[in-house]
Amino acid sequence: MATQKSDGMNYAPTGKPAPVVKPGEFLFAAMHLDHGHIYGQCNGLIEAGGTLVKVYDPDPAKVERFVKTYPQAKAVADPREILEDKAIRLVAAAAVPSDRGPLGCRVMQHGKDYFTDKSPFTTLEQLAEARRVCSATGRKYAVYFSERLHVECAIAAGDLVQQGRIGRVVQVLGLGPHRHGPAGSRPAWFYDKAKYGGILCDIGSHQLEQFLFFTGNTEATVQAAKVANYHFPDQPGLEDFGDVTVIGGNGATGYHRVDWLNPNGLGTWGDGRLFLLGTEGYIELRKYIDVAQGKQGDNLILVDHAGEHRIDCAGKVGFPFFGRLIRDCLDRTETAMTQAHAFKAAELCLQAQAIAVKVA
Amino acid sequence: MATQKSDGMNYAPTGKPAPVVKPGEFLFAAMHLDHGHIYGQCNGLIEAGGTLVKVYDPDPAKVERFVKTYPQAKAVADPREILEDKAIRLVAAAAVPSDRGPLGCRVMQHGKDYFTDKSPFTTLEQLAEARRVCSATGRKYAVYFSERLHVECAIAAGDLVQQGRIGRVVQVLGLGPHRHGPAGSRPAWFYDKAKYGGILCDIGSHQLEQFLFFTGNTEATVQAAKVANYHFPDQPGLEDFGDVTVIGGNGATGYHRVDWLNPNGLGTWGDGRLFLLGTEGYIELRKYIDVAQGKQGDNLILVDHAGEHRIDCAGKVGFPFFGRLIRDCLDRTETAMTQAHAFKAAELCLQAQAIAVKVA
Repeated sequence: MATQKSDGMNYAPTGKPAPVVKPGEFLFAAMHLDHGHIYGQCNGLIEAGGTLVKVYDPDPAKVERFVKTYPQAKAVADPREILEDKAIRLVAAAAVPSDRGPLGCRVMQHGKDYFTDKSPFTTLEQLAEARRVCSATGRKYAVYFSERLHVECAIAAGDLVQQGRIGRVVQVLGLGPHRHGPAGSRPAWFYDKAKYGGILCDIGSHQLEQFLFFTGNTEATVQAAKVANYHFPDQPGLEDFGDVTVIGGNGATGYHRVDWLNPNGLGTWGDGRLFLLGTEGYIELRKYIDVAQGKQGDNLILVDHAGEHRIDCAGKVGFPFFGRLIRDCLDRTETAMTQAHAFKAAELCLQAQAIAVKVA
Repeated sequence: MATQKSDGMNYAPTGKPAPVVKPGEFLFAAMHLDHGHIYGQCNGLIEAGGTLVKVYDPDPAKVERFVKTYPQAKAVADPREILEDKAIRLVAAAAVPSDRGPLGCRVMQHGKDYFTDKSPFTTLEQLAEARRVCSATGRKYAVYFSERLHVECAIAAGDLVQQGRIGRVVQVLGLGPHRHGPAGSRPAWFYDKAKYGGILCDIGSHQLEQFLFFTGNTEATVQAAKVANYHFPDQPGLEDFGDVTVIGGNGATGYHRVDWLNPNGLGTWGDGRLFLLGTEGYIELRKYIDVAQGKQGDNLILVDHAGEHRIDCAGKVGFPFFGRLIRDCLDRTETAMTQAHAFKAAELCLQAQAIAVKVA
């Protein structure tokens, strides 16, 4: 499936294959295909050597589309055919957000690792339960924070930060505008806050994960947050704007803004940006487009004491997360992302959502 | 004096002359030249037809440099030669920030209008006193918010917003990085918080003015703010980072970040940006440089439902503020900027500074 850029919902990047296992060594299945991100999740795992064997969704239309893309996946009529299949190591899922936590617990209780689309939870209670089940079963609750893990310039930025190229990262500023798309293009749950959890919980979760990652924080406090519905009065359950500012345990801070206001004239689904402010320079990512300049994404701009540098990352970096996740599942390590990090990012976006002031 | 871009302190744009009065019709003087912005203030007034007649500063070196640039200005040894000169309509000044309020009151009490560099005040008490004197004397306390008033792409953005090109502006996001410059290049007051008022009071004041202007707000509440000193441990009085988020009376919000961390490799003193998020599109300003792309500033990017547009504003827009200010002084109107707006912007930055959490 080629990358398509018209909407974020179906943005499923394909990267350089870098198998970490032989065919048949790491079997996984897909369950609940409510969000198009499931294609990105499966692409990543397959390119890393994973073997997709089964798929389940209550909706035959979703399954039909899925097996057209992945003919190797056997459609099963009962989820137990996946959950009780001892050969399957991991279940990838992109359920309706409010179902993701309970589904993950069920998967882990069946002795499998779980790889869910973000946002991983819609309530702090779901998070607490997942922490409990995770600890009790020793299984993984991995999260597809695609706006970092599946964006080559974001991976490259992480490498530059680790090399100390901009000194200490003191602030992360993320802009995550998203295209709503034509009326009728979104499922009913998209407009039901009880199901998607609010805009900071949903697309805000990418942002808080990036904050923790790029500043190297394991702890943070939400200082302030806002949500609004400025432009969709006929959809009172939708939040089309949200922002949050956080203070990390190490003194670095974050500010993150998300919205559903991306205008139709932009050549992609959202002009996602990330600014990393360091004590010795800064990095700007123009993730999906170089607006009014070029259609290609993965633009990294680095300014340090020596000069201004443009680094084109498209097709050059790959997505190491997926291979590491597979190895982590097999080796019971945490090289892709620690469980604590994934849960902390989830906790922050839920806390932000909980304290957000509704301004419109 | 040609525009120089290596540091913001001496950034004094020159624009298309657009005189609104005949020579000798509007006499003004300059007093207190502590900040290089005085050159931008004088350039703007002169290009609009103002006649610079006198200058005063206790430091002969500052006066010497000034009269080299403006030989028409007569250096006076006593400030009363300006304050008591009935022919002078307005005093432009860029005193040490903590002296700006008291100086302005003195100027107004001498029956003249006052045009100060930002930030106009360092304490809420100074603001209250200026409001009182302003009201009692009927004189103007105008403020040089140069990062909007003296930036052609910012003027153009205001026009586009007024034309409704991006619908309702729901958020203003401003980044105001500034170059500190080599050690020893800044005066002592730069490191003394009692004198410069804190980073949100100082360079943050530009930002809050832009928030009010672009969202059309007359009232706003500071939701949260932060300050830090990340990189100058030997200058404990300096804040090198600050941010603030505000909620406007009309429901639009703002987020603004300022810092003194601009790396030496950037081709100008700061990669100032402004993002105006509207319900029907957005505008990005790359004010002083198009980083890693071009040295020229005044880049306006407009994305609406029709497409992505780049508008080069350099040399094409001019700076209407100065002519309007001169006319306002002569006609006792408020076309350049209302007094209420200037004072409210000042109030917000002082309030932000007061509640800011020190994170480092």
